[in-house]
Amino acid sequence: MPLWQHCHAATMKGGKYSIIDDAAIVTDDGRITWIGPRGDAPAHDDEVIDLDGAWVTPGFIDCHTHLVFGGDRSGEFEQRLEGVSYAQIAAQGGGIASTVRATREASEDALFASARLRATGFLREGVTTIEVKSGYGLDLANERKMLKVARRLAEELPLTVRATCLAAHALPPEYAGRADDYIAAVCTEMLPALAKEGLVDAVDAFCEHLAFSPEQVERVFRTARELGLPVKLHAEQLSSLHGASLAARYQALSADHLEYMTEDDAIAMAQSGTVAVLLPGAFYMLRETQLPPIDALRRHGVPIALASDLNPGTSPALSVRLMLNMGCTLFRMTPEETLAGVTIHAAKALGLQRTHGSLEVGKAADFVAWKISRPAELAYWLGGALPNRVVRSGVDIRV
Amino acid sequence: MPLWQHCHAATMKGGKYSIIDDAAIVTDDGRITWIGPRGDAPAHDDEVIDLDGAWVTPGFIDCHTHLVFGGDRSGEFEQRLEGVSYAQIAAQGGGIASTVRATREASEDALFASARLRATGFLREGVTTIEVKSGYGLDLANERKMLKVARRLAEELPLTVRATCLAAHALPPEYAGRADDYIAAVCTEMLPALAKEGLVDAVDAFCEHLAFSPEQVERVFRTARELGLPVKLHAEQLSSLHGASLAARYQALSADHLEYMTEDDAIAMAQSGTVAVLLPGAFYMLRETQLPPIDALRRHGVPIALASDLNPGTSPALSVRLMLNMGCTLFRMTPEETLAGVTIHAAKALGLQRTHGSLEVGKAADFVAWKISRPAELAYWLGGALPNRVVRSGVDIRV
Ligand SMILES: [Zn+2]
Ligand SMILES: [Zn+2]
Repeated sequence: MPLWQHCHAATMKGGKYSIIDDAAIVTDDGRITWIGPRGDAPAHDDEVIDLDGAWVTPGFIDCHTHLVFGGDRSGEFEQRLEGVSYAQIAAQGGGIASTVRATREASEDALFASARLRATGFLREGVTTIEVKSGYGLDLANERKMLKVARRLAEELPLTVRATCLAAHALPPEYAGRADDYIAAVCTEMLPALAKEGLVDAVDAFCEHLAFSPEQVERVFRTARELGLPVKLHAEQLSSLHGASLAARYQALSADHLEYMTEDDAIAMAQSGTVAVLLPGAFYMLRETQLPPIDALRRHGVPIALASDLNPGTSPALSVRLMLNMGCTLFRMTPEETLAGVTIHAAKALGLQRTHGSLEVGKAADFVAWKISRPAELAYWLGGALPNRVVRSGVDIRV
Repeated sequence: MPLWQHCHAATMKGGKYSIIDDAAIVTDDGRITWIGPRGDAPAHDDEVIDLDGAWVTPGFIDCHTHLVFGGDRSGEFEQRLEGVSYAQIAAQGGGIASTVRATREASEDALFASARLRATGFLREGVTTIEVKSGYGLDLANERKMLKVARRLAEELPLTVRATCLAAHALPPEYAGRADDYIAAVCTEMLPALAKEGLVDAVDAFCEHLAFSPEQVERVFRTARELGLPVKLHAEQLSSLHGASLAARYQALSADHLEYMTEDDAIAMAQSGTVAVLLPGAFYMLRETQLPPIDALRRHGVPIALASDLNPGTSPALSVRLMLNMGCTLFRMTPEETLAGVTIHAAKALGLQRTHGSLEVGKAADFVAWKISRPAELAYWLGGALPNRVVRSGVDIRV
């Protein structure tokens, strides 16, 4: 039962910093068994670990990633900046189609190796829990392959991983012009099989003109409900289809993106306890100008999470901490809101709010000790690495 | 005389990738003595180093930083996002005044320790040369203290450092309302003394309504000329004062920021060989909308460099590689242009073009071996760290 002391704690209890100055933390068997002011700490004969005046926060939680993918799209990124049009790139087989192709062609081991490298980068900067979506396989075998990589990440790295099946991400080429048939295959074959194999913690879909309609999404949600799986939704990124309200009707864990959501959507999400997951990396890379309605979310008490949306097309983001800065700079969130966005609210977006996301007795001993002078520094510094020490399940990890 | 092989080289010769596939590099005494296709490499009995298929680029050069400063401004960053006005913050002694105060109060050792930490972060991501400006001391003793820290960085880290005196950065409080008197002190006392002590490689100033007028800047430039020192200028960031043309008339190494520069300024810079240093971190943090005129710079053949502008107020940027992404995403530069911007053109912005900035025989053996599949990945990935191996003066450094 080590006692960690000589630190300040931003516990994030209740979504605020909820600071304990000169704190001490006792951990046992991977959980926090005591936390409070050092002077009140229980008598302690075991190991005492000095954190040298660091600020301790909960381990970061990245609640929206497409971490597993084949290839990358740096070639396309370069072509576009050199003046090649979207149409030409699409004609070459570019865009998401190229990632689907590369992911289908990659072996599970190859996908795991590249995903592991990216996950390790997250771990180093203090991320102890990530969500990983499928959605570049788009058939049973390849969606399974992606979800198995997500499970392997949890086995081989000191990381909590939630696997989300996003088979309804895009229409695979073999179903061109037959979106309803594809959704039928997702609902009658893919989801039931993958759920039965224990590979799925949640079900996601992409509700947008260029992806799937609210009706198609609702069919996916009904299937998830029958399978006893919680849902999430990519919604309102490029237009207002009220996917956020649809998600709320199905008690979704989260609705994500949300630039075009309305006040009514916010009210529906507040009532269902659905978390708003904002993705400033994609907003930035796409040079969006439509801001998500932060004030409406605040006014109606919708919890706001932030995530990397790591994906090879619209957010090749290798840092979660950078999202804190972007949340502040681009979305005008406060540093405290952004830190809640990658801790306690991100936990809720994964259904993990009882075990993760804040420094409280009974929760996982996942925390980061930062050599900074105040928590706002986490959002203030732009890029790079801040010196830290990452503790996951009570164990100091060095990766 | 080690031979480095099993790599591809983006030499950046002539400001282009200028790729050598399957390259080899021979280094001796800190310089490149041979570079070319591996098949043509000279017979070699010495150490052979296998780079495992990496892409090799010149070491990055960050040609515009305010790396040395006391304190940080994360508290102010947070206050502003919580709704405190600029006026209130200024009334509390915030803004640059607070950094001047903290820098004056800090010991040389304390300034060195924090600067060293930031410089080490740059080194890890592949930066082997940095420029460091003074400009928060604003009196002889404190400007000297900052410049001495810059010199110590070069002594204690495997890093080439150019020290720039930016005494004409802001008006110190003791000269309130007496800008001409302060400029007189800079020109008659501070610059001559600091130059004589060998602490100054270049002279910079801030030409803006809220800083110094073109006439005041010109006085600084004349003094620099008398002292035999090259000049640089912070120009056209917030308004058009034609500081860029003024800089060109004094054959400035660079004019920096440049959002509001005109086509005539670009023509003047092209004629004088003055480098345009663009600072996307500050553009991003200030949420500027006026883009620097990239097309005009291209059309007139002005070399374009990119830099972090690391400073506690407007660009707390701890990553140079992030500036490549921002150069692409925000300024629509190509990945190749951004890489030239932190290598060969950045070298020219420091007057180091004969010895640094590209992989060519006779230049410093400063290079980075990246585990990537094409150079565009350097600009494509958003934040985080890419696996690399940093070689400075022919020595593989691990920091
Ligand atoms: Zn997504
Ligand atoms: Zn500057």
